[in-house]
Amino acid sequence: MSTDEDAEDTSRAIMEATYRALCEHGYASLTMQDIADESGTSKSLLHYHYDTKEGLLTAFIEDFLDDFEERIETADDVPPDERLREFLDWFVSPLEDDRRAFHTAFLELRSQAPFNEGYRGQLKRSDELARNAIADIVEDGIDAGVFRADADPESVALLIFATMDGARVREVTLAEDGYADSVRDALSEYVIDDLLVEEAE
Amino acid sequence: MSTDEDAEDTSRAIMEATYRALCEHGYASLTMQDIADESGTSKSLLHYHYDTKEGLLTAFIEDFLDDFEERIETADDVPPDERLREFLDWFVSPLEDDRRAFHTAFLELRSQAPFNEGYRGQLKRSDELARNAIADIVEDGIDAGVFRADADPESVALLIFATMDGARVREVTLAEDGYADSVRDALSEYVIDDLLVEEAE
Repeated sequence: MSTDEDAEDTSRAIMEATYRALCEHGYASLTMQDIADESGTSKSLLHYHYDTKEGLLTAFIEDFLDDFEERIETADDVPPDERLREFLDWFVSPLEDDRRAFHTAFLELRSQAPFNEGYRGQLKRSDELARNAIADIVEDGIDAGVFRADADPESVALLIFATMDGARVREVTLAEDGYADSVRDALSEYVIDDLLVEEAE
Repeated sequence: MSTDEDAEDTSRAIMEATYRALCEHGYASLTMQDIADESGTSKSLLHYHYDTKEGLLTAFIEDFLDDFEERIETADDVPPDERLREFLDWFVSPLEDDRRAFHTAFLELRSQAPFNEGYRGQLKRSDELARNAIADIVEDGIDAGVFRADADPESVALLIFATMDGARVREVTLAEDGYADSVRDALSEYVIDDLLVEEAE
């Protein structure tokens, strides 16, 4: 195995350990030792790669977004309105066990973004990725005559993504299962349905 | 002045000091001493009234929501669609200076709600207050023939409030002025406009 592959494997193992450590310990009380314990490596090895916990977590979000970016590429043979609903379904799947723990920790991390430029940079990238993905689908839908021609793809994307995020934040902070699902259904009925070009009767 | 009035004054002074201390220090690093310094009283007096920082902050959110509840009572002579837009405008006024600092600290506090039952109880109350306020306006609008009769007030309220919240969270975490304003405009165009009963032409 080449040195590059070794480095890749180490980095992958650290990212996966970080995910598990965040789920188990939350963000605020997370230490480099917790992550070292999860990854089965030493704290000094972690510090060799990342100066601080914040630096490691910034790399973690970056890695997470790389995956997100890859998964965004959706099948183009699905009609745009269906693609939009699939995007929402994917983004708002139920928060069970680990995923709830992860989103809980991730909200703690996000709440520190106003104080941390590294986090903020990655969150801005995530915002742009998701909004562009939604805007692209809406644009395709307008081109295909499925969505109303007077809809503005960027405004619609801004609206939909803020709504999904608010739904998720409320589900996490209020500890209520299904909050985000209910909001997604309302979004589908009161926003997406209204974007559809009405069939002539 | 009666003892009750004294107690009321002390409590009011502590709540106002807590607001200022949150704006200045944020949530995570806030100490009882910071709040004592802002209120010009002693830390031991604070501890006489509140066992812990978390206890004091739970009382603070409660007090904050009492004010919110009072302010929700809107003028009934304004048409429902206008009342709904006024509610949004009030909720999404620009985050300048102190208000940005406060919302930044408040998001930190909210991110701790999954670990703190006192916070969570107050946040649930806030969620219900705001959603009921919106649902009441939508219901009035349906009764008045301004909003579509097939709109479900509770779904619409759930949708609108999650959207407003997501917009605010993104404005705070991305440190972008005007994010929430843009979402509010999109909400007005793609949700509220579509609730209106179309005028016969």
